[in-house]
Amino acid sequence: MDGRDWRKFLYPYEQSVDELKVKFKSLRTELKQLEDFSPIEFVTGRVKKVSSILEKARKLNVSMDHLETGIEDIAGIRVMCQFVEDIERVVELIHERQDMDVVYEKDYVNNNKPSGYRSYHVIVEYPVQTALGVKKVLAEIQIRTLAMNFWATIEHSLNYKYKEKLPKEVVTRLEKAAEAAFKLDEEMSSIREEIVDAQKDFATKSDL
Amino acid sequence: MDGRDWRKFLYPYEQSVDELKVKFKSLRTELKQLEDFSPIEFVTGRVKKVSSILEKARKLNVSMDHLETGIEDIAGIRVMCQFVEDIERVVELIHERQDMDVVYEKDYVNNNKPSGYRSYHVIVEYPVQTALGVKKVLAEIQIRTLAMNFWATIEHSLNYKYKEKLPKEVVTRLEKAAEAAFKLDEEMSSIREEIVDAQKDFATKSDL
Amino acid sequence: MDGRDWRKFLYPYEQSVDELKVKFKSLRTELKQLEDFSPIEFVTGRVKKVSSILEKARKLNVSMDHLETGIEDIAGIRVMCQFVEDIERVVELIHERQDMDVVYEKDYVNNNKPSGYRSYHVIVEYPVQTALGVKKVLAEIQIRTLAMNFWATIEHSLNYKYKEKLPKEVVTRLEKAAEAAFKLDEEMSSIREEIVDAQKDFATKSDL
Amino acid sequence: MDGRDWRKFLYPYEQSVDELKVKFKSLRTELKQLEDFSPIEFVTGRVKKVSSILEKARKLNVSMDHLETGIEDIAGIRVMCQFVEDIERVVELIHERQDMDVVYEKDYVNNNKPSGYRSYHVIVEYPVQTALGVKKVLAEIQIRTLAMNFWATIEHSLNYKYKEKLPKEVVTRLEKAAEAAFKLDEEMSSIREEIVDAQKDFATKSDL
Repeated sequence: MDGRDWRKFLYPYEQSVDELKVKFKSLRTELKQLEDFSPIEFVTGRVKKVSSILEKARKLNVSMDHLETGIEDIAGIRVMCQFVEDIERVVELIHERQDMDVVYEKDYVNNNKPSGYRSYHVIVEYPVQTALGVKKVLAEIQIRTLAMNFWATIEHSLNYKYKEKLPKEVVTRLEKAAEAAFKLDEEMSSIREEIVDAQKDFATKSDL
Repeated sequence: MDGRDWRKFLYPYEQSVDELKVKFKSLRTELKQLEDFSPIEFVTGRVKKVSSILEKARKLNVSMDHLETGIEDIAGIRVMCQFVEDIERVVELIHERQDMDVVYEKDYVNNNKPSGYRSYHVIVEYPVQTALGVKKVLAEIQIRTLAMNFWATIEHSLNYKYKEKLPKEVVTRLEKAAEAAFKLDEEMSSIREEIVDAQKDFATKSDL
Repeated sequence: MDGRDWRKFLYPYEQSVDELKVKFKSLRTELKQLEDFSPIEFVTGRVKKVSSILEKARKLNVSMDHLETGIEDIAGIRVMCQFVEDIERVVELIHERQDMDVVYEKDYVNNNKPSGYRSYHVIVEYPVQTALGVKKVLAEIQIRTLAMNFWATIEHSLNYKYKEKLPKEVVTRLEKAAEAAFKLDEEMSSIREEIVDAQKDFATKSDL
Repeated sequence: MDGRDWRKFLYPYEQSVDELKVKFKSLRTELKQLEDFSPIEFVTGRVKKVSSILEKARKLNVSMDHLETGIEDIAGIRVMCQFVEDIERVVELIHERQDMDVVYEKDYVNNNKPSGYRSYHVIVEYPVQTALGVKKVLAEIQIRTLAMNFWATIEHSLNYKYKEKLPKEVVTRLEKAAEAAFKLDEEMSSIREEIVDAQKDFATKSDL
C-alpha cells in the first residue's frame, strides 16, 4: 500500500468534502429562499478509498508522487438535479464562486459516452485550511439528474463485476435502460415550466 | 387553528418519525451486512404540517376530536427501493416486526391509481414512550422505487397548483411521464439479477 | 480475536445505542416543552470496542460463551445533568418506561467509590428488532453531572496509562480534583432553585 | 420588528455558523491525528435570534442601519477546552488561519469580569460565498473551559431573570460557584501534563 501515512494524506480531502457538502447544501437552501425553486435536489460526497486510488493510478499510469495532480476525484461531490435544464444553472453558479477555481470541465450531458453515461463534471481547485497551513486540493463535482444517477450507479456496479468486459447481452440491456432514463428526463423537461411554477406555489403554502 | 396546543399534539408523532427513521436505516445497514444487498435504498420521514392536517380533515370529513384515528399519515415514512421487486420484501419485513402492528395496506403498485400513481402504503400502529406514558400512534409507510418517487413528487406539486383540477394538456404529459417512469422500472427489473449479483461483488471489494 | 463474526455480534448493540440515543434526546426535548426545564443536559452513546470487551472478559473471568450476559456495558449510554438533583429524576423516568426493563442499579453518587468516582448506573434489558427477529440486549446507562463527567474522563485516562497502579502523587492530585468537582456541584445545588426558575423564564423568551 | 426580510438578512450568518462549525470540528479531528491530543473538546454554534439582536441594538445604541458592524455576535461559535492552557493554543491557531481575519480580541481569562465571568473572545471577519456573491460577516468565537462554560450558562440565565439586577444573596452564591469552577480548573491544570500524556496513550489503544 506504499509506505506513506494514508490518514494524513487523505485528511485535507476529507475536510474539503465536508466543507463542500455544507456549501452546496447551503446554496440549495438559499436558492429555495430567494427564488422559491432550487436547481439542486440533493448533494452527496465521498473521499475515494485507498484501494481505488491505487487502482486508478495504475490504470492511468500516474506515478505515486503525482497522485494529488494525477487523480482528480480523490475528493468527489455529486449534485443531483430534478431537470436536465438545472444542470447548466449549477455549472454557472460554480463558475461565479470565489472560494474555488474551475480547472476544467467535461460535458457528458450533450456529448454522452458511448456506454450511455450522461453527467456534467467540473474539476475545481479548492483551498482548504489545515492546522499546518493552506493546502489546495483538486475536487470533482459531478452534476446529473436523478435518472442519470440511477443509471450510472448500476453501470458502475456492472462494470465492476465484469472488469469492464460486459457481455453483449448486458450491454444491450444497459442501452435500453439508458434510453428509458433519457426518455424520462425528456418527458420531465416537457412539463418543466408547469412544475417549476407549481413547486413555487407549493413551497410557500404546504409541506412536501 | 383550533384551541389546542399543537406542539404537544404533534410531539408523539415527531418522536415516532425519529425512531422509525433510525429503525429503517438500521435495517438497511443490517441487510447489507447479512446479504450484501439491501432492498432499501434510502429512507426519509416527515410530520404533516398543521395546515395540511386541517385541510385533509376538512376534505375527508374527519371531526377535530378524531384526528388521531381519522388522519393516518400525520407521521409519514418513505422507503425508496432500487427495484420494483424489492418493495414486496420490505412489506414482508414490516409484517414480521414486533415493534409495530400493521393496521392495513394499499397496493398501488399492482393496482395503480388512474392518475398513474404507483406506491405501496402500509399503515402501522406504533407504540411510542413519552414522559407521560406509552402512546400508540398511526404512521403511514410509503414504499416505492426511485422512478415512482420522482413521478409522484411532481404530480403532487401539480395537483397542489391546480387544486386537483389539472388541465387536459398537463394530464396527458403526466401520463407520458408515468409511462417513461414505468418503462425505466421495467428495464431495470430485466437486468436486476445481473445487478444484484454485481452489487454484492462490489460491496465487498470497493466503495460506491 | 475468537473465530466469531464480530460485526454480526455487535450489530444489535449498535442498533440499540442508536435507538436509545434518539429516545433520551427526545425525552430531553419533550421535558423542555412540558416543564420548561429538562433534567437531561445532553446524551452520548458508544458500543464497546472488541479489544475492550475481550480485556474486560478476561478481568471479570467471563467465558467467551457468556459475553452477552457477563459484560453489561457493551451498549453504553451516558446522560449528563446540570445538577446533582436531576440524576434522581432521570432514574425515575427510566423506571417508568415500558420499552426497557431495569435489571439492577449502582448508586455511586451517594456511595462514591474510594477513588472519588461518582455516577449513577442503571443496567437495562432492551428489546431490539433485527432482520432476524427480536433480540434482548443489556445496556448500561450512566447518569452524572458535568463535573462528575469531567473528573471521570480524566481518571479513566490516567488508570489506563498506569494500568490501574497510579503513583501516590497522581492519586493525591486526583482526590483534590474530585473535591473541587464535588464543591462545584454543591455550590450549583445551593443556587439550583433560582437557576431552574430563571431558565424557565429564559427558555420562553430568548435564546441561549 | 423593522420592515426588512429577516430571513434574508440572517441567511449569510447561518451559512457562516454552519461552515465555521465544520471547520473547527475538522481542526479538532486533525489535531487528534497529528498530535494525539486536541486542545478542542467540542464546538457549538448559533445565530442570534431577531428579538435578541434588537434588544442588544437598543442597549448598545446601534442604529438599525449598522447592525452588521455594530453587533459582533450575530454569528456565534463556542469552542470548549479541557484545560485553561488549551485556550491560548486555540487563539494562536485562529490567528494563523487564512480563511478568516481577526478583528480584535477580549481576554476575560486573565482579566475576568467583576461578575466572575471568564472566557476568551475573538471577533473575526469571515467571507461567505452566497448565490449573490461574497459577503464578509463578523463572527464572535468564544473559547472557554467546561467549568467556565457551566458557570457562564448559569449566570446568563440568572441575569436574564433579574434583568441584570441580581439580588445580593444570588450574587454571593454566584461568586462562590465561580470560585469553585476556578478551583476545578486549577486542580485540573496541576495534573495536566499527566493527563495529556495519558490521553495520548489512551487514544491509540482503546475507546473512550
